Amino acid sequence: MRVDLNADAGESFGNWKLGRDEALFPLISSVNVACGFHAGDPLTIKHTLALAQKTGLAVGAHPGFPDLVGFGRRELAATPDEVYADVLYQVGALSAFLKVAGIPLHHVKPHGALYNRATKDPQTARAIAQAVKDFDPRVPLVVLPATPLESEAQELGLSTVAEAFPERGYSRDGRLAPRGSAGAWIHDPAEAARRAVQMVVKGQVEAVDGGLVPVRAQTLCIHGDNPQAVEIAAAVREALLAEGVAIQSY
Amino acid sequence: MRVDLNADAGESFGNWKLGRDEALFPLISSVNVACGFHAGDPLTIKHTLALAQKTGLAVGAHPGFPDLVGFGRRELAATPDEVYADVLYQVGALSAFLKVAGIPLHHVKPHGALYNRATKDPQTARAIAQAVKDFDPRVPLVVLPATPLESEAQELGLSTVAEAFPERGYSRDGRLAPRGSAGAWIHDPAEAARRAVQMVVKGQVEAVDGGLVPVRAQTLCIHGDNPQAVEIAAAVREALLAEGVAIQSY
Amino acid sequence: MRVDLNADAGESFGNWKLGRDEALFPLISSVNVACGFHAGDPLTIKHTLALAQKTGLAVGAHPGFPDLVGFGRRELAATPDEVYADVLYQVGALSAFLKVAGIPLHHVKPHGALYNRATKDPQTARAIAQAVKDFDPRVPLVVLPATPLESEAQELGLSTVAEAFPERGYSRDGRLAPRGSAGAWIHDPAEAARRAVQMVVKGQVEAVDGGLVPVRAQTLCIHGDNPQAVEIAAAVREALLAEGVAIQSY
Amino acid sequence: MRVDLNADAGESFGNWKLGRDEALFPLISSVNVACGFHAGDPLTIKHTLALAQKTGLAVGAHPGFPDLVGFGRRELAATPDEVYADVLYQVGALSAFLKVAGIPLHHVKPHGALYNRATKDPQTARAIAQAVKDFDPRVPLVVLPATPLESEAQELGLSTVAEAFPERGYSRDGRLAPRGSAGAWIHDPAEAARRAVQMVVKGQVEAVDGGLVPVRAQTLCIHGDNPQAVEIAAAVREALLAEGVAIQSY
Repeated sequence: MRVDLNADAGESFGNWKLGRDEALFPLISSVNVACGFHAGDPLTIKHTLALAQKTGLAVGAHPGFPDLVGFGRRELAATPDEVYADVLYQVGALSAFLKVAGIPLHHVKPHGALYNRATKDPQTARAIAQAVKDFDPRVPLVVLPATPLESEAQELGLSTVAEAFPERGYSRDGRLAPRGSAGAWIHDPAEAARRAVQMVVKGQVEAVDGGLVPVRAQTLCIHGDNPQAVEIAAAVREALLAEGVAIQSY
Repeated sequence: MRVDLNADAGESFGNWKLGRDEALFPLISSVNVACGFHAGDPLTIKHTLALAQKTGLAVGAHPGFPDLVGFGRRELAATPDEVYADVLYQVGALSAFLKVAGIPLHHVKPHGALYNRATKDPQTARAIAQAVKDFDPRVPLVVLPATPLESEAQELGLSTVAEAFPERGYSRDGRLAPRGSAGAWIHDPAEAARRAVQMVVKGQVEAVDGGLVPVRAQTLCIHGDNPQAVEIAAAVREALLAEGVAIQSY
Repeated sequence: MRVDLNADAGESFGNWKLGRDEALFPLISSVNVACGFHAGDPLTIKHTLALAQKTGLAVGAHPGFPDLVGFGRRELAATPDEVYADVLYQVGALSAFLKVAGIPLHHVKPHGALYNRATKDPQTARAIAQAVKDFDPRVPLVVLPATPLESEAQELGLSTVAEAFPERGYSRDGRLAPRGSAGAWIHDPAEAARRAVQMVVKGQVEAVDGGLVPVRAQTLCIHGDNPQAVEIAAAVREALLAEGVAIQSY
Repeated sequence: MRVDLNADAGESFGNWKLGRDEALFPLISSVNVACGFHAGDPLTIKHTLALAQKTGLAVGAHPGFPDLVGFGRRELAATPDEVYADVLYQVGALSAFLKVAGIPLHHVKPHGALYNRATKDPQTARAIAQAVKDFDPRVPLVVLPATPLESEAQELGLSTVAEAFPERGYSRDGRLAPRGSAGAWIHDPAEAARRAVQMVVKGQVEAVDGGLVPVRAQTLCIHGDNPQAVEIAAAVREALLAEGVAIQSY
């Protein structure tokens, strides 16, 4: 059995530093690198790829809404055409640095409110998937399973990677409990680790509103901007390895 | 005899429109497409490439300083590392749209204050040239001849394309007369056309401070944001063709 | 009888010009000046106020969402705290130029998607109104009547100015027909003028879905970014004057 | 004897946090609050003023070049008109929050590359001083003594506050040693404290290139983005109090 551990990275911006990429990278197997619209700037991208390469991580693009002050976490009523062009632009910009570093583009994972919107709105999902497919049809898209993001990508013939969130509460319908609601976040590293194992080995997790909810997990997300990100990643990693689950990129 | 006619293009931004790309494109042979830092946004890039493709133009990247409100025309004390990363980012972003459209990246021409700074500062010139070379060593860089931009690019083994400006005054030392100085701009299309022919056929032009200055011209720049751009391009084109000079991209 | 004619103004940005402020200003009685978040930059604000002052117009602030590339027309899920602070910031920035020019702040009118959201969402409306009240409780807020924007402002004790749109279609429920829907826009200056008179003199207008809808109109909006803005303003002005309606700011 | 201790503050941006304002504020007597162009956003401004008010600090505006990714530290060839308008805009935006909080605008201090440029270029200095004077002629401008920033402000009749930098090396000509040069920074809190006392009590300090250089110090700058800012502020404060120097805003 195996699973990928992913985290967002390169989310600094100019003089502002965010995340503990150096401590986190050795614990995970893939990173989603911010591309400049919600975070990340050209020099930060360059430095992040150098670090990822040194650590041997798989590198994906992490495009977001053009909203620096909101960190891409505020839904924006962009049209499908705008979403398509924004994603293509960001994937292209990151890919130039990947090309120079000799690193392949491993995957694309949309960020924050763009990701969330694509789990609810098929047009947004389709626009993202189309941009990835047009850029390179071999690059998989990281998706929340059983959402438009997954189905639209698959309709286009794009391969998808099912993501699960050991630090996030799930509601009975399989969706993430909204940020800010009770149980939305798991803060205890040990509990996050227990849930990670349950997700990968049993394919399920307890819902915040009771009962068990099925979970497909090809990759587990560790939130890199969480102050405890390193501790959680370490606990999740250790627990998975103890269960004989290999941690490696897909 | 032949020469390329180039113009900046795609310099709209969101709701703001600039330039008369539709009227200008049929008159020239290559365009330098803004990449989002001084002008241009992802959707504008997409639409500009569609128009260039329909017209059969060669398409280059036109990276600038990150200064929307100043349109990239204000010198910015970016470090060489920042210039390198900014150029690579912009070239990569544009290249994603080129790739999807099936258009090759024909050249790179820096914009405005970035171009000007590179004609004076070898470090800036080197950073630009290195970014282009690292991205694709076969892509030529458009340069003002006899400046660090040319010499640094050539030292790196990059091919260069010598640019001349029929609408701009030259001083006796071969540099452009500063914007705002007397004679800095030629407004009369007929005069611009006469100078274009003189530059291409005789390799020289009258200087604002007297005498003839030698000019190397593999490509002639038509300023696309000039209200008269279309009239000037038409006059230059006609005059060149009348002298038997073919207008085609290098 | 009297009514105010308002238009958005100062919506250029750096090198990009938008609107025909010079031709439009003599035809109207008040302007809403962009404050830098969706359009407008500090120099543009300065020049716009000089022009408004020369023409004797009343000047209001026109704050929008921080979305230059979308021109503030895309709904953004900003929190009420963010909306409050964004509005206060923009009103303050504009007010510095007003103070230097010796012009009073006449009103505040939110822009685009911020205005639209405030006609549907009481929290957004309350945040805007609270910012205006905290800055200066004597400054009126321009509102779409019978929406949360009006009711929240009035609950806070702020005075409001009812706005009507002679160029826009109304649905039977008194709301504007969505942009893009059939009948959403009146392009014919004569028809816009006829509707303006009907709104001001009779307090009603034909709905796109049939019947007459009551309309309160203390100020009529002329869309300044419309290519026909000047023609429409002239027609509306002439028709109102012909009916004996004075055009003056409130 | 008395002196002001100032620090930059409110230099976070959205999700990115910078500085240890909560620990630093009790140790100083005035703050320069970022206004959104190089750092700071509307909500950050609001929170920073609340903290300053709770601590009883005098609050000034800290306008910078419009360069978020460069944190306002890169010289930008803005015209005097642009500098004037940018400063007025930022001072106005901050002042709206001050007005709502009931805090007077205590001073203006330009940031980073804008400040540096104004110590060398009289036109930039004049534009800054004119903007402050036009906004409110009673508000003093913080200046590096014996530079155009001081002389231009004084020519306009603006009051000035002489600033000294206990953490920065000075060259014999009274200017700051350039960032990056040897001796440009004092990292040892005790040494910074010793220099602070020397500056205030004796009006001089050792130059990096030998000898003593006269220093006028009405306010001492503590760099808030320095990781050691709190330790340095505490050491400087204690040393000054031990010498009987009162720490209070001017």
